[in-house]
Amino acid sequence: MPSTEPRVGERMGVVTLVGGGPGDAGLVTVAGRAAIEAADVILTDRLVPRDALAWARPDAEIIDVAKVPGGRSTSQDEINRLLIEAAKAGNDVVRFKGGDSFVFGRGGEELAACAEAGIEARVIPGVSSALGVPALAGIPLTHRGLVQAFTVVSGHVPPGHSDSTVDWAALARSGSTLVVMMGVRTLPAITDALVAGGLDPATPAAVVADGTLPSQYVIRADVATIAAAALEAGVGPPAVTVIGDVAALDLLENDA
Amino acid sequence: MPSTEPRVGERMGVVTLVGGGPGDAGLVTVAGRAAIEAADVILTDRLVPRDALAWARPDAEIIDVAKVPGGRSTSQDEINRLLIEAAKAGNDVVRFKGGDSFVFGRGGEELAACAEAGIEARVIPGVSSALGVPALAGIPLTHRGLVQAFTVVSGHVPPGHSDSTVDWAALARSGSTLVVMMGVRTLPAITDALVAGGLDPATPAAVVADGTLPSQYVIRADVATIAAAALEAGVGPPAVTVIGDVAALDLLENDA
Repeated sequence: MPSTEPRVGERMGVVTLVGGGPGDAGLVTVAGRAAIEAADVILTDRLVPRDALAWARPDAEIIDVAKVPGGRSTSQDEINRLLIEAAKAGNDVVRFKGGDSFVFGRGGEELAACAEAGIEARVIPGVSSALGVPALAGIPLTHRGLVQAFTVVSGHVPPGHSDSTVDWAALARSGSTLVVMMGVRTLPAITDALVAGGLDPATPAAVVADGTLPSQYVIRADVATIAAAALEAGVGPPAVTVIGDVAALDLLENDA
Repeated sequence: MPSTEPRVGERMGVVTLVGGGPGDAGLVTVAGRAAIEAADVILTDRLVPRDALAWARPDAEIIDVAKVPGGRSTSQDEINRLLIEAAKAGNDVVRFKGGDSFVFGRGGEELAACAEAGIEARVIPGVSSALGVPALAGIPLTHRGLVQAFTVVSGHVPPGHSDSTVDWAALARSGSTLVVMMGVRTLPAITDALVAGGLDPATPAAVVADGTLPSQYVIRADVATIAAAALEAGVGPPAVTVIGDVAALDLLENDA
């Protein structure tokens, strides 16, 4: 296939989606690090471990497609176009994202775009922030005898939103630990819906703010009051909220 | 504190829980690899990436506490005792487990035992097989416009079991992608309960067997027939089942 800037004869590059984990570069996988070290082009986001970019080759091109809330951003269509253009020009491309590419990461859309363009793509999963952030705050999402399931849900689309596909009342009754991602502003509506759906208002809840960063802190309350407690503490994104009996645990004694 | 075999004066060792990811050594984290390289003692399981043990020091002691179904096993109490004894003797200890230590991994119990014994412990999260195995089969657990939540549930405690804390009918109505771990034998009871609870029998389902290994294969059907299809294909553990609209996707075109 012809390309505008063939770098390696007619060879097309490969696109690799690398999940960067919840914030510390040590939580990138060994394979993810190797892909970053080998890449010709890296498309990176705001919430990636910045130290991991130091692993890139000195001549690698690093393109920041960060989406700052309210600030400049690159549309998903534009990101897809950049990935395909770079690979068609013969570059091995890493799409580097925080957490895992398939957990609210739009990795599926990027793979579909590559497939449509005839570009080979692969995935290197990452440690999802939904799991890694609670773990590093000493909160296990499952605990033998206590809970055998956990649900990860986006706070971006709150209860009652026309795009919502989630039945919050059913989640309230599911017996599953709930992990709400990125939902600081929508937390009042979410916790109201859970309590209205039958969740015991005394169910423990914890908000982990700045998870895995040196500035990490944890707010604990019950589900009926956690949204007000987070507001009072001035919690901003990124934050991960855990709701369920495990949210009362602090197995690493961070708060001690 | 006195110890029976002090190796480094009176210093007690640190216990580090390392999640090994879903099977390929490349999916161990950079920090997890560093902990393995530095460890004096490693307690390892059956489902860890075996190649990662080659990173251990030549003089490191590697203790296999594998739990083979129906075969020899080490009780959790005995594992906790080994962790604490080794750390009290001044060894830095890695507890190396497949997936993530906090997702049905009993990491919480190990941390609690260390805390009770006055042993310092830390956690290095891993890529959970619940997320990594579907990802490497081309199945995203969330997909924009399709689904905004996923639930990970243990198949070890099926519907109707006296230890079950899960409301399967509520999960059926939750609108969440369901990921069933380790539930090959209980899959008929689980899928029956979901359909009885109101899940559309035509909902797509996929069983990923031997996830991330060269022998990986995927069985696809609808939720009403997936258990029979897995039985007919002779699927054994480890297997991960995904139920929901995303289970019809194959973004890596593995089956092509």
